[in-house]
Amino acid sequence: MKFTINRDLLLLNLMNVSRALSTKAPMPILTGIKIEARDNSLFLTASNNEISIQSLIQDRRLLKIEEEGVIVVPGKYFIEIVRKTESKDIDFAVFEENIVKILADRSNFSLNALEKDNFPIISFNDSETVIKMDVGNLRQIIRKTTFATSLSESRVILTGVSFSVDGRKLEVVATDSFRLAKKFMFLENEFFVSVVIPSKSLDDLNRIVDEVDNMVEMHFSPTKALFKYKNLLFQTRLIDGTFPNTSNLIPTDFLTSVKFNKNELISSIERASLFTNYDVANIIKLTIHNDKTVEIASTNNEIGAVKEEINLLECSKALDFQIAFSSKYFLDALKSFDSTEVTVHFTGEIKPFIITGEYDVNLTQLILPVRVS
Amino acid sequence: MKFTINRDLLLLNLMNVSRALSTKAPMPILTGIKIEARDNSLFLTASNNEISIQSLIQDRRLLKIEEEGVIVVPGKYFIEIVRKTESKDIDFAVFEENIVKILADRSNFSLNALEKDNFPIISFNDSETVIKMDVGNLRQIIRKTTFATSLSESRVILTGVSFSVDGRKLEVVATDSFRLAKKFMFLENEFFVSVVIPSKSLDDLNRIVDEVDNMVEMHFSPTKALFKYKNLLFQTRLIDGTFPNTSNLIPTDFLTSVKFNKNELISSIERASLFTNYDVANIIKLTIHNDKTVEIASTNNEIGAVKEEINLLECSKALDFQIAFSSKYFLDALKSFDSTEVTVHFTGEIKPFIITGEYDVNLTQLILPVRVS
Repeated sequence: MKFTINRDLLLLNLMNVSRALSTKAPMPILTGIKIEARDNSLFLTASNNEISIQSLIQDRRLLKIEEEGVIVVPGKYFIEIVRKTESKDIDFAVFEENIVKILADRSNFSLNALEKDNFPIISFNDSETVIKMDVGNLRQIIRKTTFATSLSESRVILTGVSFSVDGRKLEVVATDSFRLAKKFMFLENEFFVSVVIPSKSLDDLNRIVDEVDNMVEMHFSPTKALFKYKNLLFQTRLIDGTFPNTSNLIPTDFLTSVKFNKNELISSIERASLFTNYDVANIIKLTIHNDKTVEIASTNNEIGAVKEEINLLECSKALDFQIAFSSKYFLDALKSFDSTEVTVHFTGEIKPFIITGEYDVNLTQLILPVRVS
Repeated sequence: MKFTINRDLLLLNLMNVSRALSTKAPMPILTGIKIEARDNSLFLTASNNEISIQSLIQDRRLLKIEEEGVIVVPGKYFIEIVRKTESKDIDFAVFEENIVKILADRSNFSLNALEKDNFPIISFNDSETVIKMDVGNLRQIIRKTTFATSLSESRVILTGVSFSVDGRKLEVVATDSFRLAKKFMFLENEFFVSVVIPSKSLDDLNRIVDEVDNMVEMHFSPTKALFKYKNLLFQTRLIDGTFPNTSNLIPTDFLTSVKFNKNELISSIERASLFTNYDVANIIKLTIHNDKTVEIASTNNEIGAVKEEINLLECSKALDFQIAFSSKYFLDALKSFDSTEVTVHFTGEIKPFIITGEYDVNLTQLILPVRVS
């Protein structure tokens, strides 16, 4: 194998593929990047047990293949070499089956390759179900839901995000059973899909798909989802099992709905959370008074107490009402809105409440309150 | 105690004082900031076992004291409160001896104070020996020497930086016994001082003295050094003991002196270090050939090998010469120079070599090579 490639182009593609590099020792081969030179193209592939990424480089002005071949290089070191190199082009050649020579200006690297036969065989297969979506929409969906998934492995299904399409409606739901994030949108064609995608895979995908003007093609098969974006293939395993039915959880009758300026509310909650302990329960109390004043308070016996007053913009019904909840969950939810104003809809002092935003019409955030004395 | 103060002014001074806050549990009182309101001034003091910092605020337009007093507040929480507050001014009052009320706009904090009688009594006393120095010079001295101190506590004296003044010459030396950094400068008056200052204290000081236009006053007494800078007092303990005499260590006769472009040399060394292991010895080999070419190489049996060729700018004597040394030590030393060109002066394959720079006339970096087969 022998080729010459533009340094910046190679680095960019290596960075994308590197998201799938394994950092764990159990399978050393998964710390490698597979490089295939064939058909005037270069394929870079990395895979861990969760995701696989393949990048295809074909630009004939920036890539010149002299001899085809396959090799697996140690990912971390190969990327560092390319990153530290300042030359315009890099020459790449394989000697003695398993030594890679990398020449860049007056630098000369010999890198021991990994055993290529150990690299997993990965098929990036298209499915019959192909959903096309604007990258901007996909990023929104990911950013506004994944934070609400569970970190605990005790109910594995809740560590994923449910994507279900019934006809033209795509509904995306994440929940850790104490809070829930739900976003929906309408697609151009009809589909029937119901899958649960690992939250971490979606966050990895979100870091790679950066150019909002592009489209993403999503392929769903029974055990995996494939995302096609520009010259990249991003594949993730799916989580097996049935996602809980959450359609009846979201209340529709409210005691009162209170509209706030989002940023003022976030600042107040952040100050009220200063003495809460992130390790344990970070509970704050919100009190609405009959005269339409709102008070946010929290107490920590060791450190002290905070009391915040905040202006509400509108209130559908004046009443005396107190509720307690996790300030972290509330902040996570508030920060998922793009709207300047958000409305918190309360159903009772120990019943779940929801948050909506005027410019986030298809987004609902739900939080379970806690009972405090 | 009762006062009102400008929020930005308070935060700035708290940030400076916070460098001396202890983060360790053994003495909880040292996690506190002492606040004294008297004589129309506010004194903020923090201290750990190494350094003590006091900040004096006197601006009558920005500080209004209604009632004098003393209290010790939990440093971390107090700073977070002030940081998260958006109001122009903050009201501060003490209730029931040990509860601090902090009012800012519509936020109301109650903070439990620490037991003020436990706070150490710190005297920031002037000494007879007062050296005045431009902040820029002090920062240069710190930046170019502290990195060469020892991290090991086995010879405590080497964890400090030696400041000695004999007449008008100030000589600053740091060494971990494998490398040495030495900088000198001439003072306006004559002094006789010989102290060893903890390296970490100097790094802390460097982070606080930021405005190059100002002067620093240095006071040396037998057990501590006091730095006066703007409205700040920064005091550090000294390290007890005798610093090794290093005056004979620096060679003056050289086999050959080789001049390099500093940034090219740094890039080459960084690439040659890619396969070295930061945990173990990161040894690279430098070879000068009779034809005035220079080669830098390193090998790691597991990963591979690197060979770099680099242009030398000048060479006092052409010869065949090979030397091996720690790439980390060499990079640390090179980066301490402001010059575009640096000269490496070799005395022998297993003898210490030194580095100088054309615009760093008073700076010498010395490195001990290692013996390799």
